[in-house]
Amino acid sequence: MDSEIALKQEIAWASHLSLQACLLPPPRGGSCGNYARCVNQILQGINNMQLWLRVPLEKSDSMDEETSDATCNNLSSRLTDSWEWWNSFRLLCEHHSQLFVALDILSSLPSSNSLGRWFGEPVRAAIILTDSFLTNARGFPCLSKRHQKLITGFFNHSVQIVISGSLVHDISQGSIEGLPISNNDINFEGTPIRHPLRPYLDYIAYLYQRMDPLPEQERFELGYRDFLQSPLQPLMDNLEAQTYETFEKDTVKYSQYQRAVCEALLDRVPDERASTTRTVLMVVGAGRGPLVRASLQAAEETGRKLKVYAVEKNPNAVVTLHSLVKLEGWEDMVTIISGDMRCWDAPEKADILVSELLGSFGDNELSPECLDGAQRFLKPDGISIPSSYTSFIQPVTASKLYNDVKSHRDLAHFETAYVVKLHRVARLAPSQPVFTFNHPEYSDKKSNQRYKKLRFEMPADTGSAMVHGFAGYFDATLYKDVHLGIEPTTATPNMFSWFPIFFPLRRPLCVPMGSPVEVLLWRCCGATKVWYEWCVTEPSPSPLHNSNGRSYWVGL
Amino acid sequence: MDSEIALKQEIAWASHLSLQACLLPPPRGGSCGNYARCVNQILQGINNMQLWLRVPLEKSDSMDEETSDATCNNLSSRLTDSWEWWNSFRLLCEHHSQLFVALDILSSLPSSNSLGRWFGEPVRAAIILTDSFLTNARGFPCLSKRHQKLITGFFNHSVQIVISGSLVHDISQGSIEGLPISNNDINFEGTPIRHPLRPYLDYIAYLYQRMDPLPEQERFELGYRDFLQSPLQPLMDNLEAQTYETFEKDTVKYSQYQRAVCEALLDRVPDERASTTRTVLMVVGAGRGPLVRASLQAAEETGRKLKVYAVEKNPNAVVTLHSLVKLEGWEDMVTIISGDMRCWDAPEKADILVSELLGSFGDNELSPECLDGAQRFLKPDGISIPSSYTSFIQPVTASKLYNDVKSHRDLAHFETAYVVKLHRVARLAPSQPVFTFNHPEYSDKKSNQRYKKLRFEMPADTGSAMVHGFAGYFDATLYKDVHLGIEPTTATPNMFSWFPIFFPLRRPLCVPMGSPVEVLLWRCCGATKVWYEWCVTEPSPSPLHNSNGRSYWVGL
Repeated sequence: MDSEIALKQEIAWASHLSLQACLLPPPRGGSCGNYARCVNQILQGINNMQLWLRVPLEKSDSMDEETSDATCNNLSSRLTDSWEWWNSFRLLCEHHSQLFVALDILSSLPSSNSLGRWFGEPVRAAIILTDSFLTNARGFPCLSKRHQKLITGFFNHSVQIVISGSLVHDISQGSIEGLPISNNDINFEGTPIRHPLRPYLDYIAYLYQRMDPLPEQERFELGYRDFLQSPLQPLMDNLEAQTYETFEKDTVKYSQYQRAVCEALLDRVPDERASTTRTVLMVVGAGRGPLVRASLQAAEETGRKLKVYAVEKNPNAVVTLHSLVKLEGWEDMVTIISGDMRCWDAPEKADILVSELLGSFGDNELSPECLDGAQRFLKPDGISIPSSYTSFIQPVTASKLYNDVKSHRDLAHFETAYVVKLHRVARLAPSQPVFTFNHPEYSDKKSNQRYKKLRFEMPADTGSAMVHGFAGYFDATLYKDVHLGIEPTTATPNMFSWFPIFFPLRRPLCVPMGSPVEVLLWRCCGATKVWYEWCVTEPSPSPLHNSNGRSYWVGL
Repeated sequence: MDSEIALKQEIAWASHLSLQACLLPPPRGGSCGNYARCVNQILQGINNMQLWLRVPLEKSDSMDEETSDATCNNLSSRLTDSWEWWNSFRLLCEHHSQLFVALDILSSLPSSNSLGRWFGEPVRAAIILTDSFLTNARGFPCLSKRHQKLITGFFNHSVQIVISGSLVHDISQGSIEGLPISNNDINFEGTPIRHPLRPYLDYIAYLYQRMDPLPEQERFELGYRDFLQSPLQPLMDNLEAQTYETFEKDTVKYSQYQRAVCEALLDRVPDERASTTRTVLMVVGAGRGPLVRASLQAAEETGRKLKVYAVEKNPNAVVTLHSLVKLEGWEDMVTIISGDMRCWDAPEKADILVSELLGSFGDNELSPECLDGAQRFLKPDGISIPSSYTSFIQPVTASKLYNDVKSHRDLAHFETAYVVKLHRVARLAPSQPVFTFNHPEYSDKKSNQRYKKLRFEMPADTGSAMVHGFAGYFDATLYKDVHLGIEPTTATPNMFSWFPIFFPLRRPLCVPMGSPVEVLLWRCCGATKVWYEWCVTEPSPSPLHNSNGRSYWVGL
């Protein structure tokens, strides 16, 4: 009780001084419920200050880490994985948004899968003990390759590096004088003073400077990192000019389309008929014309003759489309149709149907439903570009996203899929395919409803983990070997039109070491809308999310 | 998809006919997420109709129950416990309040601990297959002892019994004619017709009639079963006359007090000093006087002389107290003090301090804080009645209570302890002591704050279970061997002043077979209030409940 009073007094003082954060001592083992209760009481009362819980970065598979503290001994033999200490603590504190982690980096590191979990957690600082440094040939401190990689990861995730401990490297005066003295080292009287831990800091600074600069696209996307956006509803709503403008800049995407149209034209029209056969190509969802341009360029590249219909349901985009055709002098080749492809009465049938109706999760902007309509005017042997697409998901730790969803304090936000540039996440298992759609599709039993059960196994050396939701991606086959996608292992490089999708879970799912995660997803279709439902059935059942599309749906 | 459409059509039709409930076919194994998704969609849309999911009552420890259904085979080898099927299903449907169970009773039964779990679940019907009946010496159907006990349990829990199957008992015409024919057996033309399953029904009716009638007290309490009440705040609020009236009728309680005062008087005043020594007894919290009466009766019984101070802070009760003293002619023996025992300046010190300040959880009506005040005017060797009290808790399944708490749709109701006559609950492990208070208490380190960590192990043959919260009780030692309490194994018979207390959990806790449940409870004291906080740390951590008493507290 004395300790509790002292802790509360000290934090009240820190708060009075408007400190940004206070470091809390590490819990001793995984069962420090009393400590967590005390901190949780404090968290209810402080305003803006953060509490950073120190947690040693360790995970030993053996049972040799008995804690000596009598009050916390129940789980000590089981919980030698310090991530579990943190996990228990933050669950008791209910993912409080002002509770963060400060990791103590020791000389030995857990496996990289085990480490990976921390990148989905609110780690604010990494405290490197001077003991953890090695000594290089010149007697200076340095870090092991694995430590270097970890520190670089921390830099990438804006984790503050703190050096702690005493000078354990016996660096002779001579070597120090060989180094330049920075301004920081001169005190107000002009006398050079070096901080005793300066050699460690210099080394960390060296690691920082050695990092590759961020690619331009990543720099552009910095502001979007872990920022939840509602997915577009381009079918129900009309996109704004600015949105078209942004997407049209994605040259990689259109060059893939151009390649696909080239290959389709070459397959469909042999060289000997190139000058006599005119291929009918329809761009469905033409927007302001980028696919029309890509198609015409493909025709030019292959020497094939093309008749293009550009179908667009947004009357505002059609205005720009007309200007484009006039400006480029495409009047003879391009016919503009202002209307919805699902009800357009086409004057002739198409050889090639080109569309870009894909969302971050493939079918989530209702490409299947739109192309069902457009398929009516495709020749029986006609080609659809894309010819198929598949969605993918993988379980992730994403405490930042979870807290952002939770901050809305309602059910609907937990039953909504978000478009988000994932950054502070831990991807816990390889992604797996979910729903596939093929175009054209002439099956009798055709349905756009889908149901998929997936089972994810995490690498054995990960340890226990927390799943806050599922990251979703897609991969599309435009034509034969030409694909387009954002699934991390096969993603098309330098394409920026799609961020991943994120399906949150209403309750974070604790996954014990070695336990699989079983998730069920449905794509449901109603008269006026399409929606997803999802749930987890293992290791423990979650509620069904978004029943009947009550929270989140895409309008037809 | 055809099955889904058919199911939805049939339920829509049943709903159109305003049926009370529809029976749903059993899930095939524990992983029928698709079935649950479909039923959950239906549940969102129906008005008042209930859905009763058929679940076979079985639990086999062996792995011989492979289900043949291909879509549900993942867990079939593990989940041979049909309670787990139900549990998965209802978790997916999020404890929907219109989803109930209809149990299929088979010829063999699981262990009684395993069966016990169902009494905390929303079981509406038990369907007994005619195959499950045995045959008695006269060739009539009967049930095994264990089945009889189970059916009696169902009667006690208002579970409807359904007999299903074909007549498998070959009862000769002669024996049937020997039985009386009831009116129900005569059709509109007056011809006696017997339902072919009549012999089974007769047997079930016989079991019903054989039951012991409900004791009067239980009958009186029928209306309170599983009805959540907020605990009284007798310190902060003044009780109403009706409340005093009710409690004063608890003769068992006052006879225990009388016994305790008798023993204390005999210990304190030897026979030889009985006529010369006048014992000073103070009733603190005298209310309308029942303890004054019990004390005076004890004095008469033991032939000891008594001077009584009756201290009461409710000025309304003091009015009645004055009338009582006048009516009974106690003016010489009883001094009435209208005031709070915590600040009364007593004119002399007491030999015996008698109080009844206990709540369902012992200290929850702030008896410790009140007696701290009263202790000032107790002689150093004086006696407090009660001399100590201890609270107890045990984990329970209580889906009805959980749903009632949930129906308020806020956090505060999940962080409140309720007084409730527990009926539809499954007590999963023996209760354990929580907090103990002794009176008088002269320790230097005296504090009324408490912290307790408890670990409950369920009997091995229970299987997995669901914990919706904790049932709480108390046991008080009035004096030496005279105790008073409601802890089920030691409860004082025929006492009705206290129902148990119920601490809910915000999230139902799934406890895998063999896993212990670890719960932490705190009694916290502030300047103006006292409150409890609680959490679970195993098998998985819950949030801390009622931090800083934000939802539930008792005013000082």
